[in-house]
Amino acid sequence: MTSGIIHIINGPNLNKLGQREPDIYGHTTLADIEALCTAHAATHNFTTHFTQSNEEGALITALQEAGDSAAGLILNGGAYTHTSVALYDALKMVTIPSVEVHLSNIFAREPFRHHSYISPAVLGVICGFGAMGYTMAIDALRQAIKEE
Amino acid sequence: MTSGIIHIINGPNLNKLGQREPDIYGHTTLADIEALCTAHAATHNFTTHFTQSNEEGALITALQEAGDSAAGLILNGGAYTHTSVALYDALKMVTIPSVEVHLSNIFAREPFRHHSYISPAVLGVICGFGAMGYTMAIDALRQAIKEE
Amino acid sequence: MTSGIIHIINGPNLNKLGQREPDIYGHTTLADIEALCTAHAATHNFTTHFTQSNEEGALITALQEAGDSAAGLILNGGAYTHTSVALYDALKMVTIPSVEVHLSNIFAREPFRHHSYISPAVLGVICGFGAMGYTMAIDALRQAIKEE
Amino acid sequence: MTSGIIHIINGPNLNKLGQREPDIYGHTTLADIEALCTAHAATHNFTTHFTQSNEEGALITALQEAGDSAAGLILNGGAYTHTSVALYDALKMVTIPSVEVHLSNIFAREPFRHHSYISPAVLGVICGFGAMGYTMAIDALRQAIKEE
Amino acid sequence: MTSGIIHIINGPNLNKLGQREPDIYGHTTLADIEALCTAHAATHNFTTHFTQSNEEGALITALQEAGDSAAGLILNGGAYTHTSVALYDALKMVTIPSVEVHLSNIFAREPFRHHSYISPAVLGVICGFGAMGYTMAIDALRQAIKEE
Amino acid sequence: MTSGIIHIINGPNLNKLGQREPDIYGHTTLADIEALCTAHAATHNFTTHFTQSNEEGALITALQEAGDSAAGLILNGGAYTHTSVALYDALKMVTIPSVEVHLSNIFAREPFRHHSYISPAVLGVICGFGAMGYTMAIDALRQAIKEE
Amino acid sequence: MTSGIIHIINGPNLNKLGQREPDIYGHTTLADIEALCTAHAATHNFTTHFTQSNEEGALITALQEAGDSAAGLILNGGAYTHTSVALYDALKMVTIPSVEVHLSNIFAREPFRHHSYISPAVLGVICGFGAMGYTMAIDALRQAIKEE
Amino acid sequence: MTSGIIHIINGPNLNKLGQREPDIYGHTTLADIEALCTAHAATHNFTTHFTQSNEEGALITALQEAGDSAAGLILNGGAYTHTSVALYDALKMVTIPSVEVHLSNIFAREPFRHHSYISPAVLGVICGFGAMGYTMAIDALRQAIKEE
Amino acid sequence: MTSGIIHIINGPNLNKLGQREPDIYGHTTLADIEALCTAHAATHNFTTHFTQSNEEGALITALQEAGDSAAGLILNGGAYTHTSVALYDALKMVTIPSVEVHLSNIFAREPFRHHSYISPAVLGVICGFGAMGYTMAIDALRQAIKEE
Amino acid sequence: MTSGIIHIINGPNLNKLGQREPDIYGHTTLADIEALCTAHAATHNFTTHFTQSNEEGALITALQEAGDSAAGLILNGGAYTHTSVALYDALKMVTIPSVEVHLSNIFAREPFRHHSYISPAVLGVICGFGAMGYTMAIDALRQAIKEE
Amino acid sequence: MTSGIIHIINGPNLNKLGQREPDIYGHTTLADIEALCTAHAATHNFTTHFTQSNEEGALITALQEAGDSAAGLILNGGAYTHTSVALYDALKMVTIPSVEVHLSNIFAREPFRHHSYISPAVLGVICGFGAMGYTMAIDALRQAIKEE
Amino acid sequence: MTSGIIHIINGPNLNKLGQREPDIYGHTTLADIEALCTAHAATHNFTTHFTQSNEEGALITALQEAGDSAAGLILNGGAYTHTSVALYDALKMVTIPSVEVHLSNIFAREPFRHHSYISPAVLGVICGFGAMGYTMAIDALRQAIKEE
Repeated sequence: MTSGIIHIINGPNLNKLGQREPDIYGHTTLADIEALCTAHAATHNFTTHFTQSNEEGALITALQEAGDSAAGLILNGGAYTHTSVALYDALKMVTIPSVEVHLSNIFAREPFRHHSYISPAVLGVICGFGAMGYTMAIDALRQAIKEE
Repeated sequence: MTSGIIHIINGPNLNKLGQREPDIYGHTTLADIEALCTAHAATHNFTTHFTQSNEEGALITALQEAGDSAAGLILNGGAYTHTSVALYDALKMVTIPSVEVHLSNIFAREPFRHHSYISPAVLGVICGFGAMGYTMAIDALRQAIKEE
Repeated sequence: MTSGIIHIINGPNLNKLGQREPDIYGHTTLADIEALCTAHAATHNFTTHFTQSNEEGALITALQEAGDSAAGLILNGGAYTHTSVALYDALKMVTIPSVEVHLSNIFAREPFRHHSYISPAVLGVICGFGAMGYTMAIDALRQAIKEE
Repeated sequence: MTSGIIHIINGPNLNKLGQREPDIYGHTTLADIEALCTAHAATHNFTTHFTQSNEEGALITALQEAGDSAAGLILNGGAYTHTSVALYDALKMVTIPSVEVHLSNIFAREPFRHHSYISPAVLGVICGFGAMGYTMAIDALRQAIKEE
Repeated sequence: MTSGIIHIINGPNLNKLGQREPDIYGHTTLADIEALCTAHAATHNFTTHFTQSNEEGALITALQEAGDSAAGLILNGGAYTHTSVALYDALKMVTIPSVEVHLSNIFAREPFRHHSYISPAVLGVICGFGAMGYTMAIDALRQAIKEE
Repeated sequence: MTSGIIHIINGPNLNKLGQREPDIYGHTTLADIEALCTAHAATHNFTTHFTQSNEEGALITALQEAGDSAAGLILNGGAYTHTSVALYDALKMVTIPSVEVHLSNIFAREPFRHHSYISPAVLGVICGFGAMGYTMAIDALRQAIKEE
Repeated sequence: MTSGIIHIINGPNLNKLGQREPDIYGHTTLADIEALCTAHAATHNFTTHFTQSNEEGALITALQEAGDSAAGLILNGGAYTHTSVALYDALKMVTIPSVEVHLSNIFAREPFRHHSYISPAVLGVICGFGAMGYTMAIDALRQAIKEE
Repeated sequence: MTSGIIHIINGPNLNKLGQREPDIYGHTTLADIEALCTAHAATHNFTTHFTQSNEEGALITALQEAGDSAAGLILNGGAYTHTSVALYDALKMVTIPSVEVHLSNIFAREPFRHHSYISPAVLGVICGFGAMGYTMAIDALRQAIKEE
Repeated sequence: MTSGIIHIINGPNLNKLGQREPDIYGHTTLADIEALCTAHAATHNFTTHFTQSNEEGALITALQEAGDSAAGLILNGGAYTHTSVALYDALKMVTIPSVEVHLSNIFAREPFRHHSYISPAVLGVICGFGAMGYTMAIDALRQAIKEE
Repeated sequence: MTSGIIHIINGPNLNKLGQREPDIYGHTTLADIEALCTAHAATHNFTTHFTQSNEEGALITALQEAGDSAAGLILNGGAYTHTSVALYDALKMVTIPSVEVHLSNIFAREPFRHHSYISPAVLGVICGFGAMGYTMAIDALRQAIKEE
Repeated sequence: MTSGIIHIINGPNLNKLGQREPDIYGHTTLADIEALCTAHAATHNFTTHFTQSNEEGALITALQEAGDSAAGLILNGGAYTHTSVALYDALKMVTIPSVEVHLSNIFAREPFRHHSYISPAVLGVICGFGAMGYTMAIDALRQAIKEE
Repeated sequence: MTSGIIHIINGPNLNKLGQREPDIYGHTTLADIEALCTAHAATHNFTTHFTQSNEEGALITALQEAGDSAAGLILNGGAYTHTSVALYDALKMVTIPSVEVHLSNIFAREPFRHHSYISPAVLGVICGFGAMGYTMAIDALRQAIKEE
C-alpha cells in the first residue's frame, strides 16, 4: 500500500537542466532527477508526481493541486523564489509538509538570490547539494508525515 | 437598457477563497462574490464580467480587454499587486475608471504587502472590508462613470 | 430609534476644503461633506458627530471621545496620517469599528504620502473617491456594526 | 543563402503599441516594427522570427527556443525587464549574441524603470530611439555574429 | 523645608491609562501614578507637579516652565517620543536634571518605537518597569540634584 | 499708504530665544526680532503681524490666516520644519510669496535638521544669518510682491 | 532567610572601570559597584553573585548559570550589547526577571551604540545613571520577583 | 576500516538544547543528537567528533582542527551564524566538504536570522528539520566525499 | 576708503545664464548679476572680484585666493555644490565670512540637488531669490564683517 | 552640401584607449574611432568634430559649444558619467539631439557604473557594442535630425 | 637601554598564516612575521611582545595589558576588525600610540571588509603590504613615541 | 645608477598644506614633504617626480604619465579620493605598483571620508601618519618593485 503521493514542482529554466550553465548546475537533466526521485520515494512506499513549468501561474496551480491531493511537496521555485509573493501565498494555503530545494548554494551567488519569498512558508530548506537535495527532501518529508 | 459592463478581475490564489487561510480571508468563496457583484451591479443597470487567473499575463490580457469594451473595471491583483510593473503598465493604458480592491487590510499585514505597484494607476483604493469592498467599488465606479 | 452615532473626524487643513488646491481636492467644502454624511447616515438611522481640527492633540482627544460614545468612527487624518504615532495609539485604544478615508489617491502623490501610521489600526481604508469616500465609509461601518 | 534567423522577442503590453500611451511610445504598432525588422534584416540576408507575449513564462520559453535555433536575438522585455530574475536566467543560458532594446529612454522615466535584471546578461543595450532601436540592434547583431 | 519641585510631564493618550490596551499598560491609572509619585517624593522632601496633555505644544510649554521653576523633571513623552524634534529642542534648553520614563519596554515593541528623539537630551532612560519607573526616576533625580 | 501686511510666524521654542542655547542662537530675543522687523518693514511701507506658537496646529491656522489677508509671509518653523507635512500642506494652499528663515545654519547641525518639509513650498530659503535673516526675507518679499 | 541570589553580569572592558575614559564613565571602579550592590541587596535580603568577563562565551555561560540558580539577573553587556545575537538567545532561555543596565546614556553617544540586541529579551532597561543604575535595577528586580 | 572522521561543531546555547525555548527547538538534547549522529555515521563507516562551545574563538579553533584531520564537517553556528566574519574566514581555509545546519527554519524567524555569514563558505545548507538535519548532512557529506 | 573686496565665485554652466533653461533660471545674464553686485557693493564701500569657471579645480584655486585677499566671499557652486568634497575642503580653509547662493530653490527640484557639501562650511545659505540672492549675500557679508 | 556637424565628445581616460584594460575595452584606439566616425558620418553628409578631455570642466565647455553650433552630439562621458551633475546640467541646456555611448556594457560591471547622471538628459543610450556604438549613434542622430 | 616594548596583537585565523588561502595571504607564517618584527624593532632598541588569539575577549585583555605596560602597539584584528565594538572600546582606553595593520588590501575584497570599527581609535592604518606592513608600523610607532 | 623614478601625485588643496586647518594637517608644507621624499628616495637610488593639482583631469593625466614612465607611484588624492571614479579608472590602467597615502586618519573623520574609490586599485593604503606616510610608501614601493 502506498504512503501517498509526493508532488515535486520545478520552476522556470529547470527544463534546460544539463544544458544550462553546467559549471553551476552540473550535467544531470531534470529527467534524471525525476527518475532518481521516483526510485528513492518507492523505497519508502511513496509515489511521485513531477511538474515543471516556466509559468508562475502554472506553478501556483500546481501548488494548489498538491495541497488538495498530495501527502507532501517539494518546490524548487527557480528564479521565482526571489520575486514571487504569489508562490508564497499559494504555499501558505497548503497544510501538508513542504520542502524548498535548490540545486546550487544560492547564498554563494548574486545578492538577489539570497532572499527567498518562499522560505518562511515551508518546513525547511535544502540547498547546494545538487540532485541529491531532492532525495534528502523526500527523507525529510517522510519523517514529517510520520510525525503528524 | 444597460449602463455598460463592469469587468471584475481577480488575481492569483483568489480561486481558493473560502478554503484559503480563513482567519484572514473568511469563508466567502469567489463564486459568492461574483453573485454578490452581479446582483449589486444589476440594481444600477450594470452587467458584470468576472475573471480569475493565477497567470500574470492572463491578467494583463484581461485588463487590455476591459480597456477595449468595459465601462469600468475592478482589480484585485492578489499577490501580483506587490510585484508587477506589468499590471501597472496595463492599467495605465486603460482610460476607463478603475478601482483597486483587497479583501484584507493589507497595511495591517507583512511589510511587503504595504506597497502596491497598481495604486498610482487607479482612481481609488478600497481595502479591508472583505467581499463588501467589491460592491463599494461598483458604487464608486457608477459615480465616476456618471461624472465623466 | 437611532442605530447610534458615527463620529467623523477631520485633520489639518481640511477646514480649507474647496479653497485648497482645487485641482487635487475639488470644490466641495467640508460643510458640503458634513451635509452629505448626515443625510446618508440618516437613511440607516445613524446620527453623525462631525469634527475638524488643525491640532494633533485635539484629534487624539476626539478619537478618545469617539471610543467612549460612538458606534463607529471615520478618520481623515490629513497630513498627520503620515507622521503621527500618537493618532495610531489613540486608534488602537478604540474598540469600535473605524475607517480611514482620504479624498485624493494618496498613492498617486508624493512618496511621503504613501505611508500611513493609521492604516494598521483601522478596519479598512478608502482613498481616491473624493467626498463619496465618506458615504462609502458609512456603508462599511453599518455593515461592520451589524456583524459585531 | 541566409545568414541565419534573428529572434525578436517582445514582452507584456507591447501588443498594444500604437494605442498605448502614445505620448511615450508613439503611434507605430508592433506590426509596423515587425515589417521594419524583416525588411532591414533581409538586406543583410537574415530572416526574422517575431514573438510577443504578456506571459513571463512564454517569454522564457521563447528565449530557450532562440538559444536552440537562432543566430542572434533581440529582447524588449517590457515591464518584466525590471522584475524578472527568470528572464535573466534564461538569457544566461543562451550563448548566441543578444541585444536588449527599449523604445523609450527608461532612464528618463520612473525610478523603478532604471534597473534592468536583463542588462548584465546581454551583449549591449539600446534605449530611447523608438522603433529604430530594433534595426540598430540588428546591425549590432550582424557585427557580433561576424566577429564570432 | 522642601528640596524643591519635581515636574512630571506625561504625553498623549496617557490620560487613558488603565483603560488603554491593558495587556501592554496594565490597570494602573494616571491618578494612581500621581499618588504614588507624590508619596514617594515626599519621603525625600520633594513636592511634585503633575501634567498630562495630548498636545505636543502644551508639552513643550510644560517643559519650558519646568526649566524655569523645577529642581528636576520626568518626561513620559508617549508617542511623541518617536516623532518630536520639538520636544528634544525644549529639553535641550532645560538645565535641570531630566529623566525619560516609559511604562512598557519600548524595545520589545514595534520598530518605530525603538528610536527616541528625546533620549540624547536627558540624563538617563528607564523603561519597562510600569508605574515603578516613575519612582525610580525620582530616586535618580534626587541623586543627581544632590551631586550638582 | 501701506503696501500691505507681512505675517511673520515663528514655531516652537522660539519664545525662549535669548535664553535658549545661546552658543547656537545668540542673545537676541524674539521681541528684539519683532522690533527689528517692524522697523525694517516700515521703511518699505509694510506693516507686520508677528506670531509665535509652540502648537503645530496654531501655526497651521496662522498660515491659513496669512493666506487670507497678508501680502507676504515669513515662516521660521523651528523644529516642526523637519517633521511637519501639515505645515507643508498649509503653505501649498497659500498663494502669496513666502520665505523660510532659520537663525542658525541648519546644514551645519545634526543630520535630522538637514531636511525641511517646508522648503519645496516656499519662494526661497535663508539660513545662518541670525536675526538679520528676517530683514533679508522682508527685502526678498518686497521684491517678489513688486514683480507679481 | 535570604530572598535569593541576584546575578550581576558585566561585559567587556568593564574590568577597567575607573581607569577607562573617566569623562564618560567616572572614577567608580567595578569593585566599588560590587560593594554598592551587595550592600543594597542585603537591605532586601538578597545576596549577590558578581561576574565580569571580556569573553562573549563566558558571559553566555554566566547567563545560563543565572537562569539555573538565580532569583533575578542584571546584565551590563558592554560593547557586546550592540553586536551579540548570542547574548540575546541566552537571555531568551532565562525565565527569571532580568534588567539591562548601562552606566552611560548610550543614546547620547555614537549611533552604533543606539541599538541593543539585548533589550527585547529583558524586563526593562536603565541607562545613564552611572553606578546607581545597578541599585535601581535591584529595586526593580525585587518588585518583579514579589509580583511573580 | 573507517571512511574517516566527521567533525560536528555546535555553537552558543546549543548546550542547553531540550531546555531552551522548546516551542522552537523541541525536547531533543544535544546528547541525543550526538548519539543519533554517531549511529547514523557508523552505518557509513564514519566516526564522529562532537564539539560544542559558547566561545566564538573555540569554534574557530575547532574548525581549524577539523580542517587538519577530518574527512568532512558539519557546523551549526547558532547565533554566531549571523554575526561572525571570523567563522566565515575559518571555513574558507578548510578544504574538506562542509555543511551548515540549523534546527529551526531561520527564514521563518526574526529578520536578523535571515542572513548567514557562513553560507557562502559551505557546500550546502540544511535548515528547519530539527535533529534530522544532522543526519541529512552526514548523507550529503558521504556523497561529497565519494565524489571528490 | 574701501571696506575691502568681496570675491564672487560662480560654478559650472553659470556662464550660460540667460540662455540656460529660462523657465528655471530666468533671463538675467551673469554679466547682469556682476553689474548688480558691483553697484550694490559700492553703496557699502566694497569692491567686487567676479569669477566663473566650469572647472572644479579652478574654483578651488579661486576660493584659495579669496581666502588670501578678500574680506568676504560668495559662492554659487552650481552643480559642483552636490558632488564636491574638494570645494568643501577649500571653504573650510578659508577664515573670512562666506555665503552660499543659489538662484533657484534647490529644495523644490530633483532630490540630488537637496544635499550640498558646501553648506556646513559657510556662514549661511540663500536660495530661491534669483539674482537678488547675490545682493542679499553682500548685505549679510557686510554685517558679518562688521561683527568680527 | 553638408547636413551639419556632429560633435563627438569623449571623457576621461579614453585617450588611452587601446592601451587601457584591453580585456574590457579592446585594442581599438580613439584615433581609430575618430576615423570610423568621420567616414560613417560622411556617407550621410555630416562632418564630425572630435574632442577628448580628462577635465570635467573642459567637457562642459565642449557640450556648451556643441549646443551653439552642432546639429547633433554624441557623449561618452567615461567615469564622469557616474558622478557629474554638472555634465547633466550642461546637456539639459542643449536643445539639439544627443546620444550617450559607452564602449562596454556598463550594467555588467561594478555597481557604481550602473547609474548614469547623463541618461535622463539624452535622447537615448547605446552601450556594450564597442566602437560600433559610435556609428549606431550617428545613425540615430541622422534619424532624429530628419524628424525634427 | 631599551626604548620600550611594542605589543603586536594578532586576531583570529592568523595562527594559520602560510596555510590559509595563500593566493590572498602569501606563504609567510606568523612565526616569520614575529622574527621579522623582533629584528626590525631591535634596530631601534625596541623589544616586542607577540600575541595571537582566536578569542575576541583574549584580544581585549591583550589590548588592556598593552595599555598598561607597552610603549606602542600594533593590532591586526583579523575578521574581528569588521564586527567588534568591544575592540574599539578597548583601544579607546589605551593612551599609547597604536597602529592598525592588515596583510591584504581589505578595500579590494568583499564589501563587509571595507568597514573597520577599529580605525577611528588608532593613530593610523596600513594595509595591503603583507608582512612588511608590520615593520612599517614599527617605524611609525617609533616616530610617534619620539614626538610625544 | 638610478632604480627609477617614483611619481608622487597630490590632489586638491594640498598646495595649502601648513596653512590649512593645522589642527588636522599640521604645519609641514608640501615643499617640506617633497624635500623629505627626495632625500628618502635617494637613499634607495630612486629619483622623485612631484606634482600637485587642484584639477581632477590634471591628476588623471599625471597618473597616465606615471604609468608610462615611472617605476612606482604614490597618490594622495585629497578630497577626490571620495568622489572620483575617473581616478580609479586611471589607476586601473597603470601596471606599476601604486600606494595611496593620506596625511590624516580619514576613518576618524566625517563619514563621507571613510569611502575611497581609489583603494581597490592600489597595492596598499597608508593613512594617519602625516608626512611620514610618504616615506613609508617609498619603502613599500621599493619592496614591491624588487619583488616584481
